[in-house]
Amino acid sequence: MTVKAPAEIGMRLEEVDTPALILDLDAFETNLKRLADAVGKRVRVRAHAKTHKCPEIGKRQVAAGAVGVCCQKVSEAEAMVEGGIADVLLTNEIVGARKLERVAALAKRARIGVCVDHADNVRDLQAAAQSAGAMVETYIELEVGMRRCGVAAGAPALALARTIAASPNLRFAGIHAYHGRAQHIRSAEERRAVIQNSFVLVSNTKALLEENKIVCPIVTGAGSGTFMFEVELGGWDEIQPGSYVFMDRDYARNEWAPPMPRFEHALFVLATVMSRPGPDLAVVDAGLKASSVDSGMPGVWERPGLSYTHASDEHGWVEIGQGAAAPGLGDKLLLVPGHCDPTVNLYDWYVCVREGVVESLWPITARGAVY
Amino acid sequence: MTVKAPAEIGMRLEEVDTPALILDLDAFETNLKRLADAVGKRVRVRAHAKTHKCPEIGKRQVAAGAVGVCCQKVSEAEAMVEGGIADVLLTNEIVGARKLERVAALAKRARIGVCVDHADNVRDLQAAAQSAGAMVETYIELEVGMRRCGVAAGAPALALARTIAASPNLRFAGIHAYHGRAQHIRSAEERRAVIQNSFVLVSNTKALLEENKIVCPIVTGAGSGTFMFEVELGGWDEIQPGSYVFMDRDYARNEWAPPMPRFEHALFVLATVMSRPGPDLAVVDAGLKASSVDSGMPGVWERPGLSYTHASDEHGWVEIGQGAAAPGLGDKLLLVPGHCDPTVNLYDWYVCVREGVVESLWPITARGAVY
Repeated sequence: MTVKAPAEIGMRLEEVDTPALILDLDAFETNLKRLADAVGKRVRVRAHAKTHKCPEIGKRQVAAGAVGVCCQKVSEAEAMVEGGIADVLLTNEIVGARKLERVAALAKRARIGVCVDHADNVRDLQAAAQSAGAMVETYIELEVGMRRCGVAAGAPALALARTIAASPNLRFAGIHAYHGRAQHIRSAEERRAVIQNSFVLVSNTKALLEENKIVCPIVTGAGSGTFMFEVELGGWDEIQPGSYVFMDRDYARNEWAPPMPRFEHALFVLATVMSRPGPDLAVVDAGLKASSVDSGMPGVWERPGLSYTHASDEHGWVEIGQGAAAPGLGDKLLLVPGHCDPTVNLYDWYVCVREGVVESLWPITARGAVY
Repeated sequence: MTVKAPAEIGMRLEEVDTPALILDLDAFETNLKRLADAVGKRVRVRAHAKTHKCPEIGKRQVAAGAVGVCCQKVSEAEAMVEGGIADVLLTNEIVGARKLERVAALAKRARIGVCVDHADNVRDLQAAAQSAGAMVETYIELEVGMRRCGVAAGAPALALARTIAASPNLRFAGIHAYHGRAQHIRSAEERRAVIQNSFVLVSNTKALLEENKIVCPIVTGAGSGTFMFEVELGGWDEIQPGSYVFMDRDYARNEWAPPMPRFEHALFVLATVMSRPGPDLAVVDAGLKASSVDSGMPGVWERPGLSYTHASDEHGWVEIGQGAAAPGLGDKLLLVPGHCDPTVNLYDWYVCVREGVVESLWPITARGAVY
């Protein structure tokens, strides 16, 4: 079920079979450096591996200064530990006995953190950790306004932290405070305002814990669209950007202004023109199964006047504007995915390209690791 | 990169780890029978494997009377031939030398058909077939109004058929006439009207070919939303339904009236409630990477008052209506995917269930086979 790689090392980009997921190594390395330069020593970086699902990338993030990675799923965390990452935070609630057994087993092999938002889940996690003889770093996830998971700030958060602190196989590690929706708000000023609200909730909760003699070692959170606001507000010890390594089309629609650095497009889908049914239309071989459209259609890279307007399962419609250079049958186009995370999850391989030549092929080990 | 199966044979459905792709075997077998009963001996069935990507399902479709399967991609066709299907039609243009080499190689091992809509592509296909010493069944794809691939009816179609007929390693096999958009038109009467238009184009083109002494052995096309219209109009020799085996939520929104049989929901995503942040909300562990949302959100199966309203990458929002039975933390819900094809493409395994027990695990061999 692992598909063969659509390329070989040393091949030129134009020779790569399509559709293929292309990683521009120069842009990727620029993005690693740009994050490190922006953040400096002010907070720890724990890069989110949900975006790339690839230990090769995780290891390069650690080499660039990250303390480890985040994952959303136990199976992702397993792939990261297998791949050589020693410190993984599950930025998510893990519910169900089978999954918690796997978390506890993993915590015997690596430093593993996990989030909780319910006392029943703390009880089950403690039971699994005790059975395995493991110690699990446990964070309360704070609801900071995106109406997803998380415990309410104030007294409910305090009660949950106390439950963790009373669990012998769990170490209370701090607060996870992440506002996912905020990442995609277009106006930088509105993004800052939402994070300012999170900051108040985080600060008040941390103060309440400390008044009650519960030390809160780490506040962790923030994504690629907001992290410098968290850094500047000062309430966070650790940030979790993921998409910054790739920069998709949806993130590119954000307003990027200081203090947020703008990242380079490093991830592309290479597609072939498979039909030219008329002068204003090219059909490419990359549709819904090649580029996720949940956050909009992909863009056509560096081909002015070409617009990818519609996708069916295996086809994409590329409209050719007046005066645009029309691609011929068999021509290849680079597409910028609308949303990088679910697009990456469609592929088994990154075809890593530098200056037009395939330099390496990195397996997307945690592709499909949803459970 | 193949994820371990989230279940074991003999396990009860409630024990399956989540998210998991569930196939209800009784409903699946009902759908196979319902298609065969509706069509009878009036046309050949060539089931579309783009939907399921699984030779185990393809073989059951052949056992139920299908002459073979359709695929959209060469890598899908390779997986089907490997898996024991002897007759595969690529209902798509295959462009590029590497792909055409693989088509020709496959045609040495099985009966392989392919569609063309351009003379340059016929030339390249002939060259590849000649190099391999293969014979490839070659269809002209006719543009029947969906503005995707396809040659225009009339003179352009005739010219293309002549080019095929003059190619020694290609056998002119007929006309591929498929209207993808029509499948999802809600009104049965409007669907019938669109197919009636296709019928005129097909009939005129076939007559033109025959006037010019080109025998047109097969007209093939039609999908799960329209196939009985093609059968009743009489212009098609072969139909290509795919989604009928699963019946997704988008297809369920169609008006189903005779002569179209209505199929049963056989495909589900099993999800776990991982957070209950408030009385009106449950968060499940199945988001964009577990169920494709390109054709709308999944539905919650047999849980009145629960609505899946929004997805992020790894989370789904299930709103709990007034008076609805609220699911507890850790409860499992079955979701009906909005669109079956791209949802299947996210998974490595069908967890096949009968009467609440896992009966088998079928590998989704062509998952991710996009090229």
